[in-house]
Amino acid sequence: MIDQRALPARLEVVACQNASRVAEAIADMTVRGAPAIGVSAAFGLALAGLQSTAADVPAWRADLASAAETLISARPTAVNLAWAVHRILRVAEANLPLADLRERLLSEAQRMADEDVATNRRMAELGSALIQDGDTILHHCNTGALATVDWGTALGVIRMAHEQGKLIFVLVDETRPRLQGARLTAWELQQYGIPYAIISDGASGYFLRSGQAQKVFFGADRVAANGDVANKIGTYMLALAAHTNDVPVYSVVPSTTVDLSLANGDQIPIEERDADEVLGIQIKGESVVPTGAKARNPAFDVTPHSLLTAIVTEKGIVYPPFIENLARTLRAEN
Amino acid sequence: MIDQRALPARLEVVACQNASRVAEAIADMTVRGAPAIGVSAAFGLALAGLQSTAADVPAWRADLASAAETLISARPTAVNLAWAVHRILRVAEANLPLADLRERLLSEAQRMADEDVATNRRMAELGSALIQDGDTILHHCNTGALATVDWGTALGVIRMAHEQGKLIFVLVDETRPRLQGARLTAWELQQYGIPYAIISDGASGYFLRSGQAQKVFFGADRVAANGDVANKIGTYMLALAAHTNDVPVYSVVPSTTVDLSLANGDQIPIEERDADEVLGIQIKGESVVPTGAKARNPAFDVTPHSLLTAIVTEKGIVYPPFIENLARTLRAEN
Repeated sequence: MIDQRALPARLEVVACQNASRVAEAIADMTVRGAPAIGVSAAFGLALAGLQSTAADVPAWRADLASAAETLISARPTAVNLAWAVHRILRVAEANLPLADLRERLLSEAQRMADEDVATNRRMAELGSALIQDGDTILHHCNTGALATVDWGTALGVIRMAHEQGKLIFVLVDETRPRLQGARLTAWELQQYGIPYAIISDGASGYFLRSGQAQKVFFGADRVAANGDVANKIGTYMLALAAHTNDVPVYSVVPSTTVDLSLANGDQIPIEERDADEVLGIQIKGESVVPTGAKARNPAFDVTPHSLLTAIVTEKGIVYPPFIENLARTLRAEN
Repeated sequence: MIDQRALPARLEVVACQNASRVAEAIADMTVRGAPAIGVSAAFGLALAGLQSTAADVPAWRADLASAAETLISARPTAVNLAWAVHRILRVAEANLPLADLRERLLSEAQRMADEDVATNRRMAELGSALIQDGDTILHHCNTGALATVDWGTALGVIRMAHEQGKLIFVLVDETRPRLQGARLTAWELQQYGIPYAIISDGASGYFLRSGQAQKVFFGADRVAANGDVANKIGTYMLALAAHTNDVPVYSVVPSTTVDLSLANGDQIPIEERDADEVLGIQIKGESVVPTGAKARNPAFDVTPHSLLTAIVTEKGIVYPPFIENLARTLRAEN
């Protein structure tokens, strides 16, 4: 996998040789983005299946269960991680010889990777109809090829609109504390030749209130049954400022990010990460905070569904009332 | 003056020997904070009065007018700068011999400095009644002793509540792009022994929505007649998130920050600063943005008066309707 912590300075590829190394890479954000960590975990579990020295299927399944637990606990908020692990575990339940099961796990992980790319392209085709020629789009975090297996969710929609020849401009909020916007989204947009400007997260309100942005796009780490969206910290304030100023707000998610088992967003676990992510900021090589400074670092927040214009999935664009339309759209055959 | 760009790593004092050096220090934010730049400009103009080689009063006033222009144009948004310069210029109109005028300018600047401290302490006394024992207060930018001649505006209120023995906790938003919260407010709070945690600007909404902050306090760079407030970029989104979650929002300003000549906040000029303030961020000594990255950098935004609970001035706490109560309070004798 690409080491996303080294970008944009260096494009480095990290090889993870076993499941616990994959879990580590998810926890330390070598790989990040809900779809990307889901598929990474699937391959991690397939690796555990290949490497288990168990002599029979029950012992092999016990090894898998243990690896699954390590992978799932790497990060709590994005539901794709648990979803991907459970999908692999279901394959491991098939009544087959051990050698076949090992192979099935790997091919299932590969199928999930392929599906993710197809899903993203389908969302991009659907979502790009929401973007007009001349739009300035405000985008949060990174939701591009890096955050997925390929192509991207929200950034995939933007990329598709650009490929369709629409003239667009992207306001990239930097997305403190880990700066996925400034580091990764800016880097991707440069590759695609899409014009952009990085802004401080706090500046979004200025651009929205002064009519300088026509759309807001972001992804999500988990969507509850009522359409509440857990996403990278800062999303709530962005969506609130957009909604207050009548700027449409779109969350772009594969259906695997929707968790119909949760009634609302307040039930989504919010990861609090290490204070150093906030305190480690530097200017001109010099630490910015005073010695001994403390920080709080919630990594996600919940945006109430009332602030969303629509949720774009590969099965269709879902409009309010989300409580009805999300479930109906997700039940539909592809 | 203290070089605020070197804090918290180093406490350095810069001596400005003439008016244009003062203007430079204001523009490059060696000194910042609306009250602090106001009084700095007053001393800068007094310096111009002392150093002018003009042979007669009219020529001397012409030298002053030129220095005044340089000082006022250093930064456009905070009204205290122009206010302070004009107050000194009025003194220069007195019908007195040149030697007396030179001295009068200096004593007027010193009087303004003394008044600023007294004004801050009065606001702190009034405003501290708004803070309850046990409150967690969310604070934006830096509004402490550094931003004023001494004591502080919003942070002065917090400091006074602490000195009164109230147990308080401060959530310090870092205030990108220049990080006045993480650099300066955290440093000041450590000096005062007030417990705090730094948070990303985008995390404010998380703490407000989950009931983890009971009050929001900030200063202002200019307040229009209707109570609209121009303040450091990010204030609008913070006030909006607080208001939406029924958390009271207070702007603490000396009456010199109120500009009754402007009907509303949209008439306040908003400074756009150099893109490098956004792009210069580093983690572990390494630049974060890709080579060639672009940025937009508005330094202030306007918070509509409808989001404010009250405006704290040294003449009283002003509640809505601001359009009536601001003017009435400011007209009152001290």
